[in-house]
Amino acid sequence: MNKIKVGIVGYGNLGKGVEKAIKQNPDFDLIGIFTRRNVKDIKTISDVKVLNTKDILDWKGKLDILILCGGSAIDLPIQGPDLLRHFNTIDSYDNHAKIPEYYAKMNQAGIAGGKLGLISIGWDPGLFSIMRLLFETILPKSHTETFWGPGVSQGHSEAIRKIPGVIDAIQYTIPIKEAIEKAEEGKTNLIAREKHLRECYVVIENEINKDEIEKSIKTMPNYFADYDTIVNFVSLTELKEKHNKMPHGGIVLTQGITDENTKQLMKFFLQLESNPEFTANVLLSCARATFKMAKEGKTGAITIFDLPLSYLSPKEESDLKKRLL
Amino acid sequence: MNKIKVGIVGYGNLGKGVEKAIKQNPDFDLIGIFTRRNVKDIKTISDVKVLNTKDILDWKGKLDILILCGGSAIDLPIQGPDLLRHFNTIDSYDNHAKIPEYYAKMNQAGIAGGKLGLISIGWDPGLFSIMRLLFETILPKSHTETFWGPGVSQGHSEAIRKIPGVIDAIQYTIPIKEAIEKAEEGKTNLIAREKHLRECYVVIENEINKDEIEKSIKTMPNYFADYDTIVNFVSLTELKEKHNKMPHGGIVLTQGITDENTKQLMKFFLQLESNPEFTANVLLSCARATFKMAKEGKTGAITIFDLPLSYLSPKEESDLKKRLL
Repeated sequence: MNKIKVGIVGYGNLGKGVEKAIKQNPDFDLIGIFTRRNVKDIKTISDVKVLNTKDILDWKGKLDILILCGGSAIDLPIQGPDLLRHFNTIDSYDNHAKIPEYYAKMNQAGIAGGKLGLISIGWDPGLFSIMRLLFETILPKSHTETFWGPGVSQGHSEAIRKIPGVIDAIQYTIPIKEAIEKAEEGKTNLIAREKHLRECYVVIENEINKDEIEKSIKTMPNYFADYDTIVNFVSLTELKEKHNKMPHGGIVLTQGITDENTKQLMKFFLQLESNPEFTANVLLSCARATFKMAKEGKTGAITIFDLPLSYLSPKEESDLKKRLL
Repeated sequence: MNKIKVGIVGYGNLGKGVEKAIKQNPDFDLIGIFTRRNVKDIKTISDVKVLNTKDILDWKGKLDILILCGGSAIDLPIQGPDLLRHFNTIDSYDNHAKIPEYYAKMNQAGIAGGKLGLISIGWDPGLFSIMRLLFETILPKSHTETFWGPGVSQGHSEAIRKIPGVIDAIQYTIPIKEAIEKAEEGKTNLIAREKHLRECYVVIENEINKDEIEKSIKTMPNYFADYDTIVNFVSLTELKEKHNKMPHGGIVLTQGITDENTKQLMKFFLQLESNPEFTANVLLSCARATFKMAKEGKTGAITIFDLPLSYLSPKEESDLKKRLL
């Protein structure tokens, strides 16, 4: 069997997660890890080539798919379309409000290059998106709510880190219990601020900028502006010691009716000890599916809504029917 | 907009559920209900033609899809392939062990007739199948368990009703709490008998056949043989009064690891006040998807694993990307 030849682009927590995920999936072959950092500074888990991202075009035609592990705030909007012109890609672009814009750019790049990119996959967007689509379609007379946490949001932490003067940061998303209970009972008018708290632990270069940075965080559109946000400034030592785990989780919940008095409740629940490792595993399954679709000649950009779920699995279709239906 | 022209075949609880579901989905047009019973005896909820199933071929070319609402034990194995030669179909065939055999027959019939049939959809098989596929693919080092109930299983009740001498019956599937807890902790060696109890309330024609019928139930392969089953014989009055609701629910649960000590838990949960109405809603969403695929020229048989999830929704793809990703 020909293995799927993979390159990882970006070697942070998500990139490391993909490297671990590949160890559990023998149909993949990790060819190289691409980084913008000094190649010699990178210590990988497996015995794999570390290469500089600026040389990535030397690998054109030699990789089946690139798994883009950069952040959504700054990396992916540039890197995504640039790389999709030359390679099939998969990414976890998670700035929900800007997904249609990102999709359009990626679709254009993929068509231009004759390549296929699956965008915005992970658990949210990703698995939670699948649930929202299934739930609202199956129960048209219903209301759906998504809750996140308690846990660290990579997207929100990354967004804080991009602020000038910030050295490092961790953001915890905390669902508000009363809101979950109301949603299960069918309450429909919950606003963002009622559903979640956002708590940040931030290390900064200079105390002088405290107020300015706190304001930058609290007013950041799409990420923080619509929530009650607590900003704690801590030392790098404290951050590394007390906030070095990346748990997460969440719930998608739909309450609806199929007749006047017939209530139906659907719920999807995740409890993750490592968010980046779990996200990496979702990315890898979808990389397999994207590779299969690309082989069929599909180009442009797609989302998880566009592919048959059987494509995600390494197993034979007859086996899926027999064991899983 | 052209509405999707639907025929319902079989007017029991599931058929009635589909009729109600169509009221919530304005892109469908219910053309007729087909029954083997005396047409004049049927009282429908909506103002719709009731027709005899033996005249169904008169409707060839006039219906976009038939929703087959017969039982899996006797109706569907015959009716499914017969009708798929002339119409696109969708069904809830739920005899898990025999799905590959049913699929093969349906695929042959669909190809012969140039029609498309989506088989084995509902919540299990159906939504639970989706979850099992996603969960085991995303976490290759994991263990998945499915729990059903507490609730009435239509498939198992139907199987009892087909036994000669049985007037009516209801079967409750009851998950065993200790087993759910063990599965969440990652225990992998649970057998069928440890996970669920099956409790039946059965009305029979003649007291003389009690022992024989009890034995027929308890030894029925695929349905009861592998479980502890309690059989209660009751009067028709008692059955109608005390067992006239059809709640159900269940859990699909996967516990796995992405690194040596990193545990990840995925869980899907349903709590249904009416199983047939909920199943009907799943069928209808999938009827929409099947119709779309049939229009693209696909023939034979497919399962929920074979179609893009966007096909289920009546909404525009751009809307799905914007709201649900």
